[in-house]
Amino acid sequence: MKSFIAVDEKSHFPIQNLPYGIFSKQDDPHLRVGVAIGDYVLDLSILEDKGFYKDALDQNTRVFNRSTLNPLMELGRDVWRKVRKITQQLLSADESQLRDNMELRKQVLVPMESVKLHLPVTIGDYTDFYASKEHAMNVGTMFRGKEHALMPNWVYLPVGYHGRASSVVLSGTRIRRPWGQIKLADHPPIFAPCRQLDFELEIGFIMGTGNKQGEPIPIAEAEEHLFGAVLLNDWSARDIQSWEYQPLGPFLGKNFATSISPWVIPLEALEHFRVQGPVQDPEPLEYLQQGQPGSFHIQLEVHLRSKAMNHAKPISATNYRYLYWSIAQQIAHHTIGGCNLNPGDLLASGTISGPEKETRGSMLELTWRGDEPIHINEEETREWLEDGDELILTGWCQGEGYRVGFGEVVGIIEPALAKDEVLRKKAVTENHK
Amino acid sequence: MKSFIAVDEKSHFPIQNLPYGIFSKQDDPHLRVGVAIGDYVLDLSILEDKGFYKDALDQNTRVFNRSTLNPLMELGRDVWRKVRKITQQLLSADESQLRDNMELRKQVLVPMESVKLHLPVTIGDYTDFYASKEHAMNVGTMFRGKEHALMPNWVYLPVGYHGRASSVVLSGTRIRRPWGQIKLADHPPIFAPCRQLDFELEIGFIMGTGNKQGEPIPIAEAEEHLFGAVLLNDWSARDIQSWEYQPLGPFLGKNFATSISPWVIPLEALEHFRVQGPVQDPEPLEYLQQGQPGSFHIQLEVHLRSKAMNHAKPISATNYRYLYWSIAQQIAHHTIGGCNLNPGDLLASGTISGPEKETRGSMLELTWRGDEPIHINEEETREWLEDGDELILTGWCQGEGYRVGFGEVVGIIEPALAKDEVLRKKAVTENHK
Repeated sequence: MKSFIAVDEKSHFPIQNLPYGIFSKQDDPHLRVGVAIGDYVLDLSILEDKGFYKDALDQNTRVFNRSTLNPLMELGRDVWRKVRKITQQLLSADESQLRDNMELRKQVLVPMESVKLHLPVTIGDYTDFYASKEHAMNVGTMFRGKEHALMPNWVYLPVGYHGRASSVVLSGTRIRRPWGQIKLADHPPIFAPCRQLDFELEIGFIMGTGNKQGEPIPIAEAEEHLFGAVLLNDWSARDIQSWEYQPLGPFLGKNFATSISPWVIPLEALEHFRVQGPVQDPEPLEYLQQGQPGSFHIQLEVHLRSKAMNHAKPISATNYRYLYWSIAQQIAHHTIGGCNLNPGDLLASGTISGPEKETRGSMLELTWRGDEPIHINEEETREWLEDGDELILTGWCQGEGYRVGFGEVVGIIEPALAKDEVLRKKAVTENHK
Repeated sequence: MKSFIAVDEKSHFPIQNLPYGIFSKQDDPHLRVGVAIGDYVLDLSILEDKGFYKDALDQNTRVFNRSTLNPLMELGRDVWRKVRKITQQLLSADESQLRDNMELRKQVLVPMESVKLHLPVTIGDYTDFYASKEHAMNVGTMFRGKEHALMPNWVYLPVGYHGRASSVVLSGTRIRRPWGQIKLADHPPIFAPCRQLDFELEIGFIMGTGNKQGEPIPIAEAEEHLFGAVLLNDWSARDIQSWEYQPLGPFLGKNFATSISPWVIPLEALEHFRVQGPVQDPEPLEYLQQGQPGSFHIQLEVHLRSKAMNHAKPISATNYRYLYWSIAQQIAHHTIGGCNLNPGDLLASGTISGPEKETRGSMLELTWRGDEPIHINEEETREWLEDGDELILTGWCQGEGYRVGFGEVVGIIEPALAKDEVLRKKAVTENHK
């Protein structure tokens, strides 16, 4: 399959991908739905107005002239498939309708560098899982010692917890170092800015259709409810987290910010890269038994750039396929007690770490809690993220001559507020806003 | 202060209260904002249309002809105060405008027993705290043994976690017993319906105005952001919870349902019942130091009615004032790292237990994990909630000759789905819908 639009083979957005996002144009702040294709954004709101989607969508409603993807998601998988097929045909090199209409091309193909991207989804609830056995072992060893590293429940159920939906932000949002309580050895907790600021490399799945409260989603149907996936950085304040997290789980250590990528990759685009995950032993309980391979071969990388560097340097390279628990198992588990999922809910994988040191998805693990600093250039090392550091997550599925990519999630660390600002004895200064 | 409407001295809804709710009428399914007064609901949407609130509200918008309280909440405390004052005057015995207009009274005063109440607020995020020292000690002792009962962090910070917003339901919603993983001694976990179904007696505060991400709410301003309070039952599956909760906190043990009362009590109505909470030792860190008494004298009761009983029997009587951490401290802590709260966010207290056995706010504590069953009538005892049980929470502040009450939160336990239904090998049968 090829588009009439030239797409580099390393581009994340070939015709095999077609991820959805929300964008506005320089001369028009109105939000609308677009699809990424090469270096362009295809404006679906105009195409919808012109009737191109009439075979998929009710003519009396508009799902692309909207500020979030939720109205599209609510329509369900049959509609998502029809819409995707129409878009793919329109962009195909073999199809003249758009290809040969230069006037229409000018209207609906907007250069990517000229658009402003927005949070693509209205997220009702955000759940974060803990699906990497390697990550759980690493963190558990550091927080609780080797013998209590992996809790006995971990191999029986996809451990997860509720995260904070309000502080999910778009890639590019600057991340301010949080204040909080920090416990030093042999000393009562102090009130101070975080000293162990970290990232977590994750994939986030976005629910399309949900379920009625009290009626679980069976595992065989779980993926039918999934709209797509994003890259996600679950920023973490490790010193705040390790002091606060027992017995009810992470709270302020995680809820100051979570960044997601702007483009939502349709589940259909990942289908070609489906693989079997790790062998599960013990055998999962009946409601968690999945008939088909439940993982995806997604290559993932983390890059770091300090203020002194011109180019970011890779610090980790891993793969989604390392995860022990699948997204279908996570959905089946999440709903088995009757909890209702809604369109737009975000289900994140948890940190993705592999077996080797360089495949670990957080600073905590890469530097073993700061004990083994990593070199980021000839003069600088890092134990944790420092002010001014830019952290970039990226990921893609490698096809033959093309990539189905997630783009990037980028965040730059801002210095903490001054003490008088955080206590609001003084207004938050402009350069902090 | 007295209303021209007769209000019994044990009524929860005198002119000193005036809580907000969302209701519809038998002959008109349209949702709107009302205020409870004695046995009536005052229809604010009609009064707004007629211009009665023109001194408080912009004439070009409508905040009462709405399906949630959020538009009112977003306007901020000055507006809430003005609106309340106008309503109080309109209902006052000394004020003729409504009192003597029988036509208008007929239009705007709807008998309470004829209305249908709806979820009053669109809840973005739901946070559940753990503010009762007695409850934390009791649960900690049972889950982890006496020496690890209270984690060292507990006296330094108001421990809390993110709950599930999507499954918050209105009082009266039937609660289905959830399925889940249950760990029995010396046996791998089994997949079965919950055997230790419990309630938790809580007060939930509802945020009016929020804060910008990255800019904490200082403790001195915390209560200005609060719109009001509800009664809350945080239904809990103790066997599911105790197996799953380490290390990331409660998940399926809590997220199948949380019930709230339909009437939101304005913070102003609680002001008269402000009291000092327990002495805090050690002294809280600077950002948690509160200048004024931060608790409220709210009497709380739990009643249980089995299928065999005509009337519910009280099983617990306690008080909000027992809580160690105040709502202002909880808000200051929640935002200190930069987490943004939004209008409609729900902040629950955690189970309210006092020092005596009969003041405990959960079955877990009342029956000491089932070891000391309680008598609910001459023939029946309870270790946990059973199918068909009706659980009623109620609470009020006792004034001189009047009560500022929360009404009730009621829930009846439905049997679990059959195994074929929960796995969806067979459709969920009608009597389960």
